[in-house]
Amino acid sequence: MQRTELVKGELSFSRMIQGYWRLTDWQVTTQQLVQFIEQGLEMGITTTDHADVYGAFTEEGVFGKALKAAPHLREQIEVVTKCGILFPCDNQPRVHEKHYNTSTDYIIASAERSLKELCIDTIDVLLIHRPDPLMDADAVAEAFHRLQKDGKVRHFGVSNFTVPQFELLQSRLETPLVTNQLEISAVHSDYLFDGNLDFLQQQRIAPMAWSCLGGGDVFSADEFAPLRKVAERIGEHYNASLDQILLAFVLALPCQAMPLLGSGNIERIRRQVQALDIKLDRQHWFALLEAARGVEVP
Amino acid sequence: MQRTELVKGELSFSRMIQGYWRLTDWQVTTQQLVQFIEQGLEMGITTTDHADVYGAFTEEGVFGKALKAAPHLREQIEVVTKCGILFPCDNQPRVHEKHYNTSTDYIIASAERSLKELCIDTIDVLLIHRPDPLMDADAVAEAFHRLQKDGKVRHFGVSNFTVPQFELLQSRLETPLVTNQLEISAVHSDYLFDGNLDFLQQQRIAPMAWSCLGGGDVFSADEFAPLRKVAERIGEHYNASLDQILLAFVLALPCQAMPLLGSGNIERIRRQVQALDIKLDRQHWFALLEAARGVEVP
Amino acid sequence: MQRTELVKGELSFSRMIQGYWRLTDWQVTTQQLVQFIEQGLEMGITTTDHADVYGAFTEEGVFGKALKAAPHLREQIEVVTKCGILFPCDNQPRVHEKHYNTSTDYIIASAERSLKELCIDTIDVLLIHRPDPLMDADAVAEAFHRLQKDGKVRHFGVSNFTVPQFELLQSRLETPLVTNQLEISAVHSDYLFDGNLDFLQQQRIAPMAWSCLGGGDVFSADEFAPLRKVAERIGEHYNASLDQILLAFVLALPCQAMPLLGSGNIERIRRQVQALDIKLDRQHWFALLEAARGVEVP
Repeated sequence: MQRTELVKGELSFSRMIQGYWRLTDWQVTTQQLVQFIEQGLEMGITTTDHADVYGAFTEEGVFGKALKAAPHLREQIEVVTKCGILFPCDNQPRVHEKHYNTSTDYIIASAERSLKELCIDTIDVLLIHRPDPLMDADAVAEAFHRLQKDGKVRHFGVSNFTVPQFELLQSRLETPLVTNQLEISAVHSDYLFDGNLDFLQQQRIAPMAWSCLGGGDVFSADEFAPLRKVAERIGEHYNASLDQILLAFVLALPCQAMPLLGSGNIERIRRQVQALDIKLDRQHWFALLEAARGVEVP
Repeated sequence: MQRTELVKGELSFSRMIQGYWRLTDWQVTTQQLVQFIEQGLEMGITTTDHADVYGAFTEEGVFGKALKAAPHLREQIEVVTKCGILFPCDNQPRVHEKHYNTSTDYIIASAERSLKELCIDTIDVLLIHRPDPLMDADAVAEAFHRLQKDGKVRHFGVSNFTVPQFELLQSRLETPLVTNQLEISAVHSDYLFDGNLDFLQQQRIAPMAWSCLGGGDVFSADEFAPLRKVAERIGEHYNASLDQILLAFVLALPCQAMPLLGSGNIERIRRQVQALDIKLDRQHWFALLEAARGVEVP
Repeated sequence: MQRTELVKGELSFSRMIQGYWRLTDWQVTTQQLVQFIEQGLEMGITTTDHADVYGAFTEEGVFGKALKAAPHLREQIEVVTKCGILFPCDNQPRVHEKHYNTSTDYIIASAERSLKELCIDTIDVLLIHRPDPLMDADAVAEAFHRLQKDGKVRHFGVSNFTVPQFELLQSRLETPLVTNQLEISAVHSDYLFDGNLDFLQQQRIAPMAWSCLGGGDVFSADEFAPLRKVAERIGEHYNASLDQILLAFVLALPCQAMPLLGSGNIERIRRQVQALDIKLDRQHWFALLEAARGVEVP
C-alpha cells in the first residue's frame, strides 16, 4: 500500500486508514478484533484512527484490550487519537452540556486517559477534535509541549479546523501540525472549494479524510440519486463498486487525502482498499462532481 | 479593573470601555457628564470610545465640553475616535448619499475636526470606522503618517475590518494597527466563527467589542427568547443579570475582547463592570452558544 | 491611454483591454478585423484577451488570420490567452464532459496550439482559465517553467482564482503571477467584498476585469432596474451613457482593475474608452453600489 510521509524520516501513514469510530457497534470479541487488525496489516493498513469520545468514551478501551492481548501489534501500527469533545453520557457524569475543552489541563488529562485506555506508552498523533471558540492557542501549545517532553505524544494535529484556526494554533507551536482531519467527499463537495484543501496542498500537509462516503447517505438518500446513477455508470467503466468510485474521487485530489475506512467488515475493507488502483479520468471526476452538485463547473 | 496592553509600554486600555455613541440621547448637562466620567474612572474605566459620526456629528462636541470644563480628566483617560462614515444630516450639508471616505485629505481633516470638537491636543487611537471598498491603502498610510508626525494622533486602528482588509492596510503602515473594533456577541454568533477572532488572537491584537448585548434586541426580540431563557437560568447560578451573563460570554473569549458599554446610567455601568468577576464555566458558555444558535456544536 | 505596469520594465497593459470572447459571433472578414485592431490601437488599446476555448476553440484561429495578414500588428499588441477549460464540441471530439485540465502536458500542448492558432511565436501572458480542484500546483509550475524556458510564454497569470488558490500556485512558481482576471462589476457586487480585491491591492497586482457590464443583463433585466435608474441619473451629471458609468464604477476601485471591453463595434468601444475620463465622485459611486445591492452601506 502507498504510504504518506507526514514528518520526514519520523512519521508515515498508510494511504488508507482504519477508522474505529463505530468499533463499539461491531460487537466483536477481543480475539476477533486482533484478527481484524492483522488482516488490515496484511493489506498494508497500519494507521488506526481513534478518539476519546467514540463509543461514548469506550472505543479506546475496546481497542486497548486487543493491543494488550496481542502486544506485537503495537509496533506495527500508528495510533491516532483525539480529544476536546465532551457530551453528557454515562462515562461523563459531570457533563450536562455538549461542549469542547482545549485547556492545558484537560488536554493532558485526556491524553493520559487515552494512553491507559489504549494500553500504550505513546500516542503517535494526538488531534484536537474540533475547533473550540474558547481555544487559547498558548494553552494548547503548553499542553502539547508537556506531552511531547514527557514522551506521551509524538506528534500533533487537528481535525475540522479552518485555515485561520490552523494558522493560529500553528503560530504557537514549536513543531508542525502534521495533519488536519477533514470531511472530504463528493457528497459534501462544498468542502472542496472553501480554501482549506488549497492551503493544505500549499503547506504540503496531507489531510485525513472522514466521511468519504457521506456517512452512508449516498447509498440511499434521494438527494444523492443523481450521484449514485452517474457513479454506477462510471463504476461499470472501471469495473468498480459505488464505494470504490467515491473513494477514488477523494484519492484523485492533489492534496493527497488519506481516506478513513469505517467498516468492521474485512471484505468491505478489502474491496475499498482496491480503490487505490483506480485512476479516475478527469472527465469522470468532473462528471461525479456535476452529479453531486447538480450543475456543471462554470 | 483589568487593563489590556495594546502597545508595549505605550498604550493600555481598561478592559471595559465606555462607549459614547448615544451620548447625545442621554440629555445630560456638561456637569452631569463630568460626574459620569469621574464615576467611571473610580471603577477603573479609563478608555472612552467616540466617533465623528455619532450624534450626527455632534457627540464629540458634547464630550469635548466636559473635557474643557474639567481639564484634569484628559490625562486620566484614553480617547478613541473614528472617521470615515458620512451621511446626509444637518451638519453635513454637502452630503446627499451615505458613503465612506478614506482619502488622505479627508482622514486628516476629520481627525483635526475631532481634536477641536473633543478639545484635546492628541487622539490616543484613531480608527477607520468601516472598511471602504474605495480605500487606497497607500492614501490611508499617508494620512496616518502625517497625523502621527504632527503629534495629532498617537496610534491607529480599524473597525469592522475583515482579515484581508486588515492585512492590506497593515502592509502599508510603519506601525502596527492596535485594534479592530468588531461586533462580538452571543446574539450574533456568526462573527465568532468567520476567522477574524482567530486572526486577532494569532496577532495578539485585542479587539474592542461593540454590541455585546446585541443592540438591546436580546432583551425583547422573540428570536432571542431561547437565549434569554438559558441566560436567565445560568444567571441564577452566578447570581448575575442577563446583561452580565452576556458580557461574561464575550469576556470568556480567548481574543481578550474589550467590551464597549453604551449606557449612560452609572448604576447599569456599575452592574455591567461586575461581569468581569464572572468566570463562565465552559458548559455554561456552550449552553449559551447553543441557545443563541439553536443547535449544539457538532 | 493610461497604461498599467504588470512587471517592472518588462510588461505593461493598456488600461482598457479588448476582449475577443465573442469574436466568432462578429461575422467579420480578416480585413475588417485588421481594421478593428488598428482602430483600437489608435485609441491606445494594445492589450488583447483571448482563450483557447472561446468560439468553441476557434477564436484564436480567427484572430491569428488577422495577425498573419497584417504581421506589423504583432509587435504593437500584447496577447493574453488562457487554457484549462474543455467541453464537448466539434473541435473536441474526445471530450464528453465539461471539465478542467491543468496537467503539465495539457497546459503545454494547449499553449503550443494557441501559438499556432494565433500565428505568433510567444504568448505574452498565459492564464489558467478557472481554478481546477484537481490542480497539482507543482505540475502547473513545471509546465510554466518549460514554456518560459522555451520562449513560448513570457508571463503567467490566473483567472477566477480565490486568494488561497492564488497563494497555492504562487508558492510553487519562480516568477510572480502577473494578474488574476476576475468578474468585477456593480452588477455582481458581492465580488467586491470577498477579500480577493483587498489581497490583490496588497500584492499590487492589477486584476483584469471581466463582465464589467454584467454580461449585458444590466441593460434589460428587471432586477437591475434600480441600478439603471440611478446610473442614468448619475450619467446625466457626467454627460455619460450607462455603460460609461458602469465602467467608471470599476475604474474607481483602488485595485486598478483593467476592464475588458467585449464589443466588436468600434464606435461602442470608442465611447466606452471615454469612461477613463470620468472620475466618479465618492457619493455617486456609493449611490450606484446602494442601487445595485438594494441597501445602503452599514
